[in-house]
Amino acid sequence: MSLSGKFIVIEGAEGVGKSTNQEFIRLQLEQAGIVVRCTREPGGTDLGERLRQLLLEPGQHIVEDAELLMMFAARAQHLKEVILPALAKGEWVLSDRFTDASYAYQGGGRGINLERIAVLEQWVQQTLKPDLVVLLDAPADLGLERALKRSQADRFEQEAIDFFERVRATYRTRALAEPSRYKIIDAAQSIADVQQQLMSVIRDLLQSQ
Amino acid sequence: MSLSGKFIVIEGAEGVGKSTNQEFIRLQLEQAGIVVRCTREPGGTDLGERLRQLLLEPGQHIVEDAELLMMFAARAQHLKEVILPALAKGEWVLSDRFTDASYAYQGGGRGINLERIAVLEQWVQQTLKPDLVVLLDAPADLGLERALKRSQADRFEQEAIDFFERVRATYRTRALAEPSRYKIIDAAQSIADVQQQLMSVIRDLLQSQ
Repeated sequence: MSLSGKFIVIEGAEGVGKSTNQEFIRLQLEQAGIVVRCTREPGGTDLGERLRQLLLEPGQHIVEDAELLMMFAARAQHLKEVILPALAKGEWVLSDRFTDASYAYQGGGRGINLERIAVLEQWVQQTLKPDLVVLLDAPADLGLERALKRSQADRFEQEAIDFFERVRATYRTRALAEPSRYKIIDAAQSIADVQQQLMSVIRDLLQSQ
Repeated sequence: MSLSGKFIVIEGAEGVGKSTNQEFIRLQLEQAGIVVRCTREPGGTDLGERLRQLLLEPGQHIVEDAELLMMFAARAQHLKEVILPALAKGEWVLSDRFTDASYAYQGGGRGINLERIAVLEQWVQQTLKPDLVVLLDAPADLGLERALKRSQADRFEQEAIDFFERVRATYRTRALAEPSRYKIIDAAQSIADVQQQLMSVIRDLLQSQ
C-alpha cells in the first residue's frame, strides 16, 4: 500500500496541552489545503474507545502486560480501520498519542522492558512509524496539576509523581535519540510561545513535501 | 517460582461438551484429594470477563490482530492473577480453553500466521505450557448445532461452517503433533463413553505424579 499522506503524532504526559495543540495544528494544515484526520489513542475506533474506558477506569485491576497488550490491540484496530486507510487516500493523520506513549507509560512508567515493547510494536506495525512526533514536554508536577484541575483522576492519573517523571524521561530519551522525526516543544511556556514554535515545525513539514 | 500443581486445559470448538466435562474432571480430581481451581478463557478474571464480553458481542467490529491481542491480554491477566498463584500453592488448574484456542480460532479460523501467534505466546507465557490438554473433538456441524440450540449465536458462533472446520483441523494437528501432552477424545460419542475415556486419562495423570 502506498501511503501518500503524512502521519503526525502529538505526544506528552497529562496536562501538557495535547488537545488544544492538536486543534491548532489541524487548523494550520487545513489552511494549507490539507485534509486532516484527527484521532487519538487509546481510542479512535469503536473498539478502541471501549478498550480506553476499561484502561482508564479507576479501580480496574490490570497487570502491566495486559495493559500493554490492550494498548496494542486498540492500536491494531486503529491502524487497520482509520490510520492506514486515511494515509492511503492522501489524508494527513494527526493523532493524540501513539506508540511512543506505550514506551513512556508502560515502559518508563510501569517498568516493562523496552525491548519487549519493541516486539509488539513490530508485531502490530511492521515498519510503519509516524513521520513526525511533536513532544509537548513539561515538568511532571506542572502537567499533572493542570490535568487534575480539569477532571477527576483516571486510572493513570492516580499514579504518584515519580511515575510521571519516568514517563517524561522516557519520552525525552526517545525524542532526543531521533531528532529528525521528533520535535520537543517546551509546554511550560505560554500557549502563544508554544504555538509559535508549532508554526515553525509545521512550516518545515509543509516545505519538506 | 516453583509450580507444584498441574495445569490442565479442556479444548474444543463450540458444543463439544467442555463445561460438562470440566465439571466431571473436577469431581474426579477432588475425589482423589486434589484442590482444583476451575476457570475459563477468555475470562477467569474481572478484566478477562470484560474483554470476553467485548470479544463475543455480536456485531462488534474487531480486526484479526486486535482480536488475538485481546485474547493474550486477557491471558496475561489470567496467568498473573489466577493460574500461576494457584499452581504455586499446589492447586490444580482446570481451564476451559487456553492458548491452543488462539491457534485454532485466530490461526486456523481467521488465518493469522501461526508463527506470529507463537511470538505472542512466548511474550506472555515465556516457557509455561499446560501439563495436559484434553481435546474434545467432534465434527464441526454437530458441535455448532448443539451450541446454537443452547443459546443465541455469539460473534464467533456467527461464523460459517468452514471457519469451524479450520478450527477443528488446527486443534487436531496440534494435538497429533504432541501426543504426550494432548489427549484427543471423540466428543461425538455418548457422554458415558466420553467420561469413561476421561477417567482413564485422569487415572494416568494421577499415577504419573
